[in-house]
Amino acid sequence: MKYQQTEWFSIPRIMCGLMSGTSLDGIDAAIVEFADRDGKHSFILKSQLTVPYSNEIRDEITRLIEKKSTIAEVSWLHTALSELHASATQKACEIAGISTDSLDGIGFHGQTVWHAPRAKKKFGLNFGSTLQLGSPSVLANVLDAPVVGDFRSADVAVGGQGAPLVPIFDSTFLREEHHNVIALNIGGIANITLLPPIGSKDEIRAFDTGPGNVLIDAAARMFFGKQFDSKGSIAEAGRTIKAMLEQLKQHTFITKTPPKSTGREEFNSTWLEKRIRTTFQPSIPTEDILRTITEFTAWSIAENIRLFASPTSKIIASGGGIHNRTLMSLLQNELPIAQITTADAIGIPSDAKEAVCFAYLAYRTLGGLTGNIPSVTGAKRPVKLGVVAFP
Amino acid sequence: MKYQQTEWFSIPRIMCGLMSGTSLDGIDAAIVEFADRDGKHSFILKSQLTVPYSNEIRDEITRLIEKKSTIAEVSWLHTALSELHASATQKACEIAGISTDSLDGIGFHGQTVWHAPRAKKKFGLNFGSTLQLGSPSVLANVLDAPVVGDFRSADVAVGGQGAPLVPIFDSTFLREEHHNVIALNIGGIANITLLPPIGSKDEIRAFDTGPGNVLIDAAARMFFGKQFDSKGSIAEAGRTIKAMLEQLKQHTFITKTPPKSTGREEFNSTWLEKRIRTTFQPSIPTEDILRTITEFTAWSIAENIRLFASPTSKIIASGGGIHNRTLMSLLQNELPIAQITTADAIGIPSDAKEAVCFAYLAYRTLGGLTGNIPSVTGAKRPVKLGVVAFP
Repeated sequence: MKYQQTEWFSIPRIMCGLMSGTSLDGIDAAIVEFADRDGKHSFILKSQLTVPYSNEIRDEITRLIEKKSTIAEVSWLHTALSELHASATQKACEIAGISTDSLDGIGFHGQTVWHAPRAKKKFGLNFGSTLQLGSPSVLANVLDAPVVGDFRSADVAVGGQGAPLVPIFDSTFLREEHHNVIALNIGGIANITLLPPIGSKDEIRAFDTGPGNVLIDAAARMFFGKQFDSKGSIAEAGRTIKAMLEQLKQHTFITKTPPKSTGREEFNSTWLEKRIRTTFQPSIPTEDILRTITEFTAWSIAENIRLFASPTSKIIASGGGIHNRTLMSLLQNELPIAQITTADAIGIPSDAKEAVCFAYLAYRTLGGLTGNIPSVTGAKRPVKLGVVAFP
Repeated sequence: MKYQQTEWFSIPRIMCGLMSGTSLDGIDAAIVEFADRDGKHSFILKSQLTVPYSNEIRDEITRLIEKKSTIAEVSWLHTALSELHASATQKACEIAGISTDSLDGIGFHGQTVWHAPRAKKKFGLNFGSTLQLGSPSVLANVLDAPVVGDFRSADVAVGGQGAPLVPIFDSTFLREEHHNVIALNIGGIANITLLPPIGSKDEIRAFDTGPGNVLIDAAARMFFGKQFDSKGSIAEAGRTIKAMLEQLKQHTFITKTPPKSTGREEFNSTWLEKRIRTTFQPSIPTEDILRTITEFTAWSIAENIRLFASPTSKIIASGGGIHNRTLMSLLQNELPIAQITTADAIGIPSDAKEAVCFAYLAYRTLGGLTGNIPSVTGAKRPVKLGVVAFP
């Protein structure tokens, strides 16, 4: 039996996207209306907001990830996250001026607590696994709307990395007819999706380039006691420490051939301290350190584009990093002929992009379309992502 | 958007039901063809088998339930169970002479590792939770067939106990025109469904009565190093230890007014050891302990029927416990005027009943029908059970 829902695409659908990332900031919610015209999709963003996790919930998630826990605690958090996402959905609906039961569907990413897609042998069984907490069934029945969740398992089941899943969104909404487009996301880690022109036979590729905000944030904390370098103003006041920049550039990940992915395991304050210790002198102004790290971050993104993409591409940036003006300006210096713009400029608030993306993935799944891009995730074939709970 | 699949019931559907109970025996799989004629459902069983869990997997599940574990271990088991269920489905299909991709749907109960449906307050949030491991998304993509899983969450989300879910099956296929019928299932935990005659205004009720095989199995392991008391032969050779029986009977769950449900959280080897320690003496033959526990189990089922049903009912027993002749004979002694028969006698192999039931629940969900009975689970309303993964 093949699932067919031919009428799904016949009228516009109002979707909610719910994203809670590994930074554990909270829940990004977006209400989006999608339409299909002869297979061409478009969207209108109706509302967006971020509902921060309480410290208690953030600590509980961290504890589950880092320490051992009882299965009762896992089960409890699984339900608790569903309820918190229900409440975030309700707020997003209020802002959009609609009732939750008028939602045609919800894309519920869930909280990733484990992601180990590479096959691992145990008891004679050999496979990768991924685990997102939050029950689509609970959410669907609390809100009386269909919910799609557990987006990553299907791709892992067919041999993929289960990530990144945003490229199908980029491919649908950001590709252009005559230009190479690069979708750049600067979160804790930075990643790019390479979008060849529409009609090109080149494959879409996507990979991490290295640090996004992670090292800049770490240095802002270490030297200035701040959570981050707001608008990049500290770095703007500093000057490059050449020897330190050369030290940083020696990380082999940056020039490694894709596909590749990295994380806070590789780029963090411990690594940073080791790298800058040899070249740091007390006489150096601390803003110079921040400047140098910001320059390294911009270089690492640009170097990946120079090595593995086209430096003449149009770059559409999103993620928290776009608010760092110094970083963005250094990136433009590194890639003088690239046209750099932000997702905001083309109608996608960059903070909402991932939530909009998971609303879109749910829209595809409910219409019976696949959502992964095998050239990106390494999966054997395109698959419908997620499980669906019907109210 | 309400889910409608009007064509679903227009032709017979071949389903697979997969049940792995709290007894941790393994996976019961059944291939069943369901048909709908003017809303009246019928079924033909095509094949059935039980694929035992390896000791490694059984120990791993037990460890997760009883001790703390890392989230990586939970994630791994979640995927491992999907793969094991895929292999059980393949075997059941082979026996039935069909290919897995010709299945119209699979009902995948999943392995319950936690079930605490009663609302519990924590961090200002107040609700119950239930957790079944095994990913419907992985199973659907390995087998290329739609999979329904996570049947219990929806009912818990609308205030129900999330159990029992078999009553909709019993109500559809076991009710009689002029007799009260009791469907008794003796798995790890025992439960009964009270089926008033067709047309009666009495509500269907169902609830757990207490231990099924769980304590008998625990004692067989503790004192005889056996997985279970085959045919009840150890208990048959023993004699009742009155003081111990009285100790066991003091568990308040047995006489508690329904609706009620229980699990291994409440009845397990730790509880058993505590209860029998005070009345156990080294001079007592160990088969007497098994006899006493078997007697307690029979009494707990009978006491529930005496207190909350009609002892003149026809009893249709199913589950692994029916092979325990001592248990069944003690039950008949407790209920001398009840007509006790087994599901086998009416064409449903009792070992396959739960698997057939979850095939049926998946058949209902894929057809857009609800599956819980609010008078049974305590839910506020009937809901569609489960999440659906489409290949």
